Amino acid sequence: MTARILDFLASRRPEGPCLVVDLDVVRDNFNAFRHALPDTRIYYAVKANPAPEVLQLLADLGSSFDCASIPEIEMVLATGATADRISFGNTIKKERDVARALELGVNLFAVDCEAEVDKIARQAEATGTVGARVFCRILCDGAGAEWPLSRKFGCEPSMAAEVLEHAHRAGLTAYGISFHVGSQQANLDAWDGALSSASAIFGELAERGIQLKMVNLGGGFPTRYLKDVPATEAYGRSIDEAVRRHFGNHVPETIIEPGRGMVGGAGMIKAEVVLISKKHRDDEQRWVYLDIGKFGGLAETMEEAIRYPIRTRHDGSATAPCVLAGPTCDSADVLYEKTPYELPISLEIGDEVLIEGTGAYTTTYSAVAFNGFSPLKSYVI
Amino acid sequence: MTARILDFLASRRPEGPCLVVDLDVVRDNFNAFRHALPDTRIYYAVKANPAPEVLQLLADLGSSFDCASIPEIEMVLATGATADRISFGNTIKKERDVARALELGVNLFAVDCEAEVDKIARQAEATGTVGARVFCRILCDGAGAEWPLSRKFGCEPSMAAEVLEHAHRAGLTAYGISFHVGSQQANLDAWDGALSSASAIFGELAERGIQLKMVNLGGGFPTRYLKDVPATEAYGRSIDEAVRRHFGNHVPETIIEPGRGMVGGAGMIKAEVVLISKKHRDDEQRWVYLDIGKFGGLAETMEEAIRYPIRTRHDGSATAPCVLAGPTCDSADVLYEKTPYELPISLEIGDEVLIEGTGAYTTTYSAVAFNGFSPLKSYVI
Repeated sequence: MTARILDFLASRRPEGPCLVVDLDVVRDNFNAFRHALPDTRIYYAVKANPAPEVLQLLADLGSSFDCASIPEIEMVLATGATADRISFGNTIKKERDVARALELGVNLFAVDCEAEVDKIARQAEATGTVGARVFCRILCDGAGAEWPLSRKFGCEPSMAAEVLEHAHRAGLTAYGISFHVGSQQANLDAWDGALSSASAIFGELAERGIQLKMVNLGGGFPTRYLKDVPATEAYGRSIDEAVRRHFGNHVPETIIEPGRGMVGGAGMIKAEVVLISKKHRDDEQRWVYLDIGKFGGLAETMEEAIRYPIRTRHDGSATAPCVLAGPTCDSADVLYEKTPYELPISLEIGDEVLIEGTGAYTTTYSAVAFNGFSPLKSYVI
Repeated sequence: MTARILDFLASRRPEGPCLVVDLDVVRDNFNAFRHALPDTRIYYAVKANPAPEVLQLLADLGSSFDCASIPEIEMVLATGATADRISFGNTIKKERDVARALELGVNLFAVDCEAEVDKIARQAEATGTVGARVFCRILCDGAGAEWPLSRKFGCEPSMAAEVLEHAHRAGLTAYGISFHVGSQQANLDAWDGALSSASAIFGELAERGIQLKMVNLGGGFPTRYLKDVPATEAYGRSIDEAVRRHFGNHVPETIIEPGRGMVGGAGMIKAEVVLISKKHRDDEQRWVYLDIGKFGGLAETMEEAIRYPIRTRHDGSATAPCVLAGPTCDSADVLYEKTPYELPISLEIGDEVLIEGTGAYTTTYSAVAFNGFSPLKSYVI
């Protein structure tokens, strides 16, 4: 919560639920990453929040960009950033999208299997692109992450050398290794194991005459929700030490892909209490219904993974646990029930609530028109 | 899958994932409900699929409408249907939305607590509306449903009489009881227990001098996915018997709110295989990635609840289990993993797949622009 956001809400009084993002916080976060890891290039994960104002600021600050799709690549190019600052980081790409990215000048691609390498090799040849670079994503166990990643992306480290050698033989530049330690990762040592695997793959390929150059350290940098998280500096030190420990005198080029860590804490959602009720006369537990829920932007409450801090005008007064739910006629639209949420007993229907740490993975997750409700509005200030 | 849908896809060759809805199937489904429950009014659950063509057809056929929000009410009115054919079925309404609904002529409201009654009573008075009707939703255990409902909507039956008496004293018409047996309900007896509770509440209020008139039997009527489901006729017979069993000579007005049962089977999604890969050299299991996933319209695969039938050009050949996932960089975007999905071994990258039974709860669940991907396109034919 920042004074600028509170001022904006007080003066503009926007109708309905909305996200307000403070660019000053995004700038501070970018600078914190730059200072914590001065030798590492920052590729902002566009999917976290692709608001044009956020992309423009980061482009002006010198950030590079991790893109998941052609529309995201086009949004980045629209800021004036050049294509050499873009990584097409999705390991699942249609071949025609690879072709389009190459045409736009994008030259760095994530892969995790030979079939994906083949798409890039074919299209590099078709478009006459020389030296397209690929990095292979490896699986990582994600222990310590609040939003641990599934096995969806990446291959076992034992397969990565083959995938990269395949790329090399197909005329591409086998450029490096990437991994992701899990989103909202609070364990500073999480990077260590993956860097050990990466170093081993560098060694294996060097024996085959292929010099990898880059390690993509992924994201995982947290937003402060209800629990405290380590400072960006501490991540920087820990990662830097782990890189030196595993690569010694041959420290590779490194990049990071912060998304949540860049914009999560920069945004706050303003919402409203629509109803407070009980299920029977002597019910101990209140149900509190907001005008925003799982389908309106708070999808990351799935399985109650992310617990957002919620502020009300009654803060400081006595609280009691409640079930917190969204406004749609979908019974799955419940935010916190297994672990009820403490809210002031004096909370009333019509009260405004402020949901902090919502700058990432909210606006674009929002459903188009579920139950007829509009998607989450967003103001970037 | 219908010949009209296949013809449309063959002749139009739409680019990217899309839903195609066949209005002939919607018409057949409407007529099946009408014949199965001739004395029951049909309120189509607009949230299932609010495509203007679907609403227009159902309006022309004489359907009424269950709406979750003001935009849904406005979409129904745009067909030319009058407001007396609309129920504002969401138990969680902002008071200003209640006011707007009353202004638009809507006269039937769901509630499940006294606070919601108070909103309607205040706004009925403010707008000079006489005789606004409310029905009270009661909880129902949902056993037998594939997408069982949480306790989000409805109060314990023991509280309903008070809520309705409160409405009566506040000058509203205490009109009836509603319940919902859970979505995709395959147990024909599911309605029996709730009707027993409803009948008891009718009796209790009659003793207090209040004559309830209506029982809203809700939805729950299934779409055929992978498993066979009973025919609409069988539901009709079972419900009709249960109503007579519990209400005897005083059979109330009844309404149903089919959504999935009306449009689910009328739609099919065309998608594409983007990648097929393995996680290590000797992996037995394939990962198959489609260009549609949880955030592109298949949200009901949450917790692998709904298993859609998927057709490919290789059907009939040998199959093997695979993990099925969507195209986004979100690791939660996995459709079926705990129970892998059988797909042909000869399936290839670039193949088209047809996902059946996707006419309900797909287009509007689709994220606005997650990962830069467009929302699901829809064609109604």
